[in-house]
Amino acid sequence: MQRKHLIRTLEDTFESYGFVPIDTPVLEYTEVLLGKGSGETDKQLYRFNDNGGRDVAMRFDLTVPFARYTAANRHNLYMPFKRYHINKVWRGEKSQKGRYREFYQCDFDMVGVDNACADFEILQLMNKSFQVLPVGDYQFHLSHRGLFNLFLEREGLIDNSVGILRTVDKLAKIGRDKTLEQLKEFASEDKANKILDFISQKGEFIQVLSQLELLSGGSSEASERLREIWKLIESQGLADKFILDPSITRGLDYYTGIVYETFLTEAQDIGSVCSGGRYNNLAGLYTKEELPGVGSSIGLDRLLAAMEALNNEEQNYGPQVIIFNQDKELYPYYYQLAEDLRQDGFMTEVYPLSKKLPQQFKFAEAKGFTFGLIVGQNERAENRLNLKDLRSRETKDRLSYEEVVAYIKDRV
Amino acid sequence: MQRKHLIRTLEDTFESYGFVPIDTPVLEYTEVLLGKGSGETDKQLYRFNDNGGRDVAMRFDLTVPFARYTAANRHNLYMPFKRYHINKVWRGEKSQKGRYREFYQCDFDMVGVDNACADFEILQLMNKSFQVLPVGDYQFHLSHRGLFNLFLEREGLIDNSVGILRTVDKLAKIGRDKTLEQLKEFASEDKANKILDFISQKGEFIQVLSQLELLSGGSSEASERLREIWKLIESQGLADKFILDPSITRGLDYYTGIVYETFLTEAQDIGSVCSGGRYNNLAGLYTKEELPGVGSSIGLDRLLAAMEALNNEEQNYGPQVIIFNQDKELYPYYYQLAEDLRQDGFMTEVYPLSKKLPQQFKFAEAKGFTFGLIVGQNERAENRLNLKDLRSRETKDRLSYEEVVAYIKDRV
Repeated sequence: MQRKHLIRTLEDTFESYGFVPIDTPVLEYTEVLLGKGSGETDKQLYRFNDNGGRDVAMRFDLTVPFARYTAANRHNLYMPFKRYHINKVWRGEKSQKGRYREFYQCDFDMVGVDNACADFEILQLMNKSFQVLPVGDYQFHLSHRGLFNLFLEREGLIDNSVGILRTVDKLAKIGRDKTLEQLKEFASEDKANKILDFISQKGEFIQVLSQLELLSGGSSEASERLREIWKLIESQGLADKFILDPSITRGLDYYTGIVYETFLTEAQDIGSVCSGGRYNNLAGLYTKEELPGVGSSIGLDRLLAAMEALNNEEQNYGPQVIIFNQDKELYPYYYQLAEDLRQDGFMTEVYPLSKKLPQQFKFAEAKGFTFGLIVGQNERAENRLNLKDLRSRETKDRLSYEEVVAYIKDRV
Repeated sequence: MQRKHLIRTLEDTFESYGFVPIDTPVLEYTEVLLGKGSGETDKQLYRFNDNGGRDVAMRFDLTVPFARYTAANRHNLYMPFKRYHINKVWRGEKSQKGRYREFYQCDFDMVGVDNACADFEILQLMNKSFQVLPVGDYQFHLSHRGLFNLFLEREGLIDNSVGILRTVDKLAKIGRDKTLEQLKEFASEDKANKILDFISQKGEFIQVLSQLELLSGGSSEASERLREIWKLIESQGLADKFILDPSITRGLDYYTGIVYETFLTEAQDIGSVCSGGRYNNLAGLYTKEELPGVGSSIGLDRLLAAMEALNNEEQNYGPQVIIFNQDKELYPYYYQLAEDLRQDGFMTEVYPLSKKLPQQFKFAEAKGFTFGLIVGQNERAENRLNLKDLRSRETKDRLSYEEVVAYIKDRV
């Protein structure tokens, strides 16, 4: 129920920004998926021959099928095309804490535009999403692949960029000393230190940006893009949510512009709960046309675990009103009363067995109802209802229907 | 978008009756699925060995995994347990019109109770579901397996009940003569005619019920159950929605009580859009305890096709307001304006490229926006907005923000 509620909240938020849901098949031809993720995902594919002898596999993420979909439909889609997709993906890895073979992903992307507005809109939507969820404070760590590449070029290290990116991506996990050690595989100790200095810049957004500009050879398309995005961020009063953090590089090779991660202030230890960036060549796997895109992925299961840990007070998404079963003769009345309450916006059910009241109370508690109504022949004759507040265990006797509705509305 | 909207409407309806969503894995151990559907579904299984060498398969319906789930969790579930599940299932059959390899099912069930209240609640919820969908009028055809079995017993035909049930299930499709011919495989011509007479009874619910009672040897548990259900149906003013139709037998073997199908008055040709019944032994595949249940399945893809055919007037579920991009200097204002409009409940987006207005209009039309806002430096200076109604192509110039909100609210 809580996952459902989380998904709904995100869907509503995405749609309010004009993102539309798309649904691609779970099964894709294996050749569509193979070699499009990391080598690791190739090994984890659930792959088999279908009854027609076709080599098929279950999707391992939502990004690759989206790239395939966009490339195939590029002439029918209005651009910019903004879509979201929340559903399951499969990876045949060993199950372990926080890792599942069948788990949810939540992606939202905008393709067809490469400019600061598009980049900003994704960031703005991320901010809105976390604002409406009960996760406390959060912060986005933002960077730009282009700046780092310019720096590597300047230092004569660009040929080793893939290895260097993958290494510095581990900095937070393995620490500066170990990262330095591993970087020496690709660069001299002096240059390795320079790399670490580059990605360790901290401070005000604009100050860090100037510093990175300096280290990467002056103003560039990448630094100008960041400056434009920052202007939009500031103009919308979101400056305190965004940090320019050059240590964010994202391991995946396909990013070409901004990259970012998201951390919950009260649950830093679970790592980033929303990551992504700009990828201008992803659809290039399937078409020769350029289809620039920018997008994010929310780690839904991880976020759910964090929400459960953070919200000690139990949230109630369950049904609200149970009509206890007192008298078989009153069934027509019970069912009509339930319909009236639903009409007034309450989830309502009639207990469908004539059992003793304590047993019915036990059921109501187990299912998490918040209010119960007890009506026997006497109350019915007077058109009155006995209301039981199942949390406070208070009882209000002989209320009118309107008083019941008012009482409940007052407390939800 | 329309499927999404349909699913949401159903979810809201189910939840208002206290049904909770459950989500079982797509992959089950093959032994859980094999032999639980028809022989046909066994052949259609998407089956393979996972990376750990386990023999797994993709679910072919939502009922069998639910039975497995309920049996496994029976000691933790509060009974009666009411769940719904809307998601995909897979069958490796040849793709053809109206048949897909990957398609949606929508099930709702109540287990743990075998009485008229439970039966009625499922029927009531079906009625509510079709009431809130834009499908026009509809009717439920209801019957009871028990009555038919009593009749077969009385005629000495009970040993052939499976074959007879499967044959009469085809009556609507192949006609009386061919059905008679096929029935002769199981019964004399005289008895075959009696069978056809039994299932061809028509008229008022209570009259037909009396007739069936007579033909099946007098009052029985089955006929009394139908009588109780009918009382509840009548008491809720739903009499005109339900027909007692003994030709409804449902091919599947696991039904043990009421069975039903649903027909749209304006789309009879597409067949039943919601079917189901009571099954008191289904979980018996996985546990020795009795877990009586009653439930329905909505044919979501079929229903969607019918809705599209019936509603010529296009329903708009897309975004509502687009803010046209007139001036780069106004980006901060555009993004703030969009946030305000979302706050007021409108799906809103900012066009993210500075293109010529006709190109922006073309995009707005393709994506189905209903309103557009045009704001340049002049309007901004006066705090005014130019509104374009994209359906009527009317333009309202120099409105205040409040006037814009009022105008749009008036028209949606």
